[in-house]
Amino acid sequence: MNVTPPTRSHALAEDLPLDSGQTLVGARIAYETYGELAEDRSNAVLICHALTGDQYVASTHPATGKPGWWERMVGPGKPIDTDRFHVICANVIGSCMGSTGPASDGPDGKPYGMRFPVITIRDMVRGLVALLDGLGIERLHGVVGGSMGGMQALSLAANWPERAGRVLVIASTARHSAQNIAFHEVGRQAIMADPGWAAGDYYSSDARPDNGLAVARMAAHITYLSEEGLTRKFGRRLQDREATSFSFDADFQVESYLRYQGSGFTQRFDANSYLYITRAMDYFDLAEEHGGKLANAFARSRHARFCIVSFDTDWLYPTTESRHIVHALNATGNRVSFVELSAPNGHDSFLLPHEQLDRVVHGFLNG
Amino acid sequence: MNVTPPTRSHALAEDLPLDSGQTLVGARIAYETYGELAEDRSNAVLICHALTGDQYVASTHPATGKPGWWERMVGPGKPIDTDRFHVICANVIGSCMGSTGPASDGPDGKPYGMRFPVITIRDMVRGLVALLDGLGIERLHGVVGGSMGGMQALSLAANWPERAGRVLVIASTARHSAQNIAFHEVGRQAIMADPGWAAGDYYSSDARPDNGLAVARMAAHITYLSEEGLTRKFGRRLQDREATSFSFDADFQVESYLRYQGSGFTQRFDANSYLYITRAMDYFDLAEEHGGKLANAFARSRHARFCIVSFDTDWLYPTTESRHIVHALNATGNRVSFVELSAPNGHDSFLLPHEQLDRVVHGFLNG
Repeated sequence: MNVTPPTRSHALAEDLPLDSGQTLVGARIAYETYGELAEDRSNAVLICHALTGDQYVASTHPATGKPGWWERMVGPGKPIDTDRFHVICANVIGSCMGSTGPASDGPDGKPYGMRFPVITIRDMVRGLVALLDGLGIERLHGVVGGSMGGMQALSLAANWPERAGRVLVIASTARHSAQNIAFHEVGRQAIMADPGWAAGDYYSSDARPDNGLAVARMAAHITYLSEEGLTRKFGRRLQDREATSFSFDADFQVESYLRYQGSGFTQRFDANSYLYITRAMDYFDLAEEHGGKLANAFARSRHARFCIVSFDTDWLYPTTESRHIVHALNATGNRVSFVELSAPNGHDSFLLPHEQLDRVVHGFLNG
Repeated sequence: MNVTPPTRSHALAEDLPLDSGQTLVGARIAYETYGELAEDRSNAVLICHALTGDQYVASTHPATGKPGWWERMVGPGKPIDTDRFHVICANVIGSCMGSTGPASDGPDGKPYGMRFPVITIRDMVRGLVALLDGLGIERLHGVVGGSMGGMQALSLAANWPERAGRVLVIASTARHSAQNIAFHEVGRQAIMADPGWAAGDYYSSDARPDNGLAVARMAAHITYLSEEGLTRKFGRRLQDREATSFSFDADFQVESYLRYQGSGFTQRFDANSYLYITRAMDYFDLAEEHGGKLANAFARSRHARFCIVSFDTDWLYPTTESRHIVHALNATGNRVSFVELSAPNGHDSFLLPHEQLDRVVHGFLNG
C-alpha cells in the first residue's frame, strides 16, 4: 500500500495510556467531519469504523478514489443527516490511514513495525475520546458503529458513559467467539507465513507481505457474506468461459471475485495493521473487562439510550450475540430497542442499501 | 511429508481415461482390506475416504502411528462388521498415500507436480472401479462414504449403477456450493502464495510449502466444526496462561489448537495433492454431469438402496444439500431413507462417536 496523507489529523495533547500498561507517545488521530457543529456543541455524532474501514465515511477515499464507505447513510438529508448533525469519523489507532499505527514512525524515527504495542478496542476508544477532548466535544449526541465500530460504541458507552446520549450498535458483538478468533488467526498466520512480512519489518524493503495479506482478506471476506448470498451472487457460474478448464485458473466467478478482493485490499491496507486490529478484536470481551458479567459493563450507562441491530443472515456476529447485549442492558434497566433485520447478504448487510436500516438509524438519532 | 510405502498396491491393468480427456498412464491404487471375502464375492463393502483421508480406515496409519480414521465404525462386531463384510478402502488417485498423484513419478521418471492432470470425483471413482475389477469384485454389497467419500458413493451409484447394492452417503453433497468453492480457493491461494511451493516443483527441493499448506488446513478445519462446538470446546479460554499476553502468541486455546492442526497436517499430506483434490471437489456437480438435472443422475440406479445422513450442525454440507439428493432420488422412484442426526460438532460429526449413526449404518448394511 501507499500511504496517502490524511486530510485532517489531530496530535493528542497527552500520551495515550494503553490496556497493556504501555504508553503510546505522540500519537495522532486522523479524522474527517461532515456538517456544522452547533454552537452549543450538542449535535456531534461519532461514527466508528470497522476492521478495514477508515475516516472517509462520506467522502472519497484518497487512495482508491472510491466513494466513502457509508455514503448512502451519511450526508445531507440522509439517515445520518449532516444538515442536522456534525458527523465525526476518525481512523482508529493501529490502523493505517493517518492515525498512529505500526506503519508510523516510532520515537526513534523508524517505523514501529511489530514494536507497536498491542492495543485493545478500549485503547482505540481512548484515542477517540482524546480526539473529542481536543475538538472540545464533551458529550456526543450519539455514537454509531457497525461490526468493530459497534464494539467501539459499546466500549465508549461502558467506559465513558457520560460521553454519548445515544448508542447505536449494528451487526456487532460484545465479545469475540472461538470461531471469530479462529478465522482471524488464519489471517494472521497467512500474513506471518509470507516471507515478505519479515517479522513486520518490511517498510523499507521492496518485498511486502501482499500475498499473505490477500489470503487473509479472502478468508475474512467469506465470513462477511452469507452462504445464500454467495449462491445468489455467484452460484457455480463460470468466469468468462463455457466449461471448466481442468486447470487451476479461476474457473468459477466466486474464485475470480475472491482473488480480486484479496489483491485489491493489499493496495489500501497495511499487513501489520491487519495483525494489530484483528488482535484487538479477538481480545474484545466487554464482560471480562467488567468482572465477568456483561450487565456490569452498562451499570453506569443509564443516561444513554441504546439501539441494537442485527441481520438474520449474519453468521459472523449472529443475532444471538446482539440478544446477549440486549439482555445485559435490560438487566441493568437501560433503555434499549432491538431489531433483527432480514437481509440476504450476511454481515456485509450493514454496508449495503437497506431501507429498514435507514429508517431505524434515522429514527433512533432523531427520536 | 515423508512418503511411507503403502501396504497393498494394485497396478491398474489399463490406462485410466479422465474427464479432462487426458489419460493417466500406469496408475497404481493403494488400498487396505479388512475381513474375509465370501466365496461368492457378495460381501464386499467399499469405503470411500474424505479429502485428507486415506486407505487406513481401520488400521494404524504408517506415517503418524495413529489408529485408523474410522476404527470406531469398522471392525469385528462394529457397525461395519468385518466378521460379516469384506471391507475395502482405497486411497484415491491424486492423493499421496500410495495411489498415483502429483507426488508420484510421471512417465519420464520425475514427479508429476503440476503436470499431473486435473481430476474429478468421477475420475477417482473410475480408479476405484478399476481396482474392483482387478480384485474380481463385480458387485459390492454396499458403498459407504462421508464428505468427499459421499460424493464418490453418489458418483458410483450414478455412473456405475450395477456395481453397488447399497449406497450410504453421510454428511455430503451432490455439488459444491459457492461458499464451499470459496473456502477451497483460499486454501489453494495460501499454498500457491508460499514460495516453497515453487509452482509445484518442490519434491527435490529442501523448501516445501508447509506454511501455506498449514494455513490452508487451518481455514478448512474451521469449516469442519460448528460454532457451538468451538465455543463448547474452547470458548475464549486461554492456553497455559492466566491473562492475555498482549502479544501475537497463541493466547487462546483455539489458536493453539488450530496451529497444531495446521502444522501436524504438513507431516502427513502433500500440498499438491491438496490442490488437486480440492479442485476435484469444487468441480463436483452431479446434476451438471447429467444434463443439469440431479434426478437424471439416478435414473439407472433403481436396483440400489440409498441411505442419506446429515448432521444438524454441519454448515459445510448442510442438511438442505442432503434433502436435495433425497428429492432427486424420490423423483426417480429410488428406494431411499434419510435421517438428519443431531450432533454438536458440525461436519466432523461423521468421524466422531455417535450411537445413532452407528445404528443407522449397521441397520442399513444389514437390513
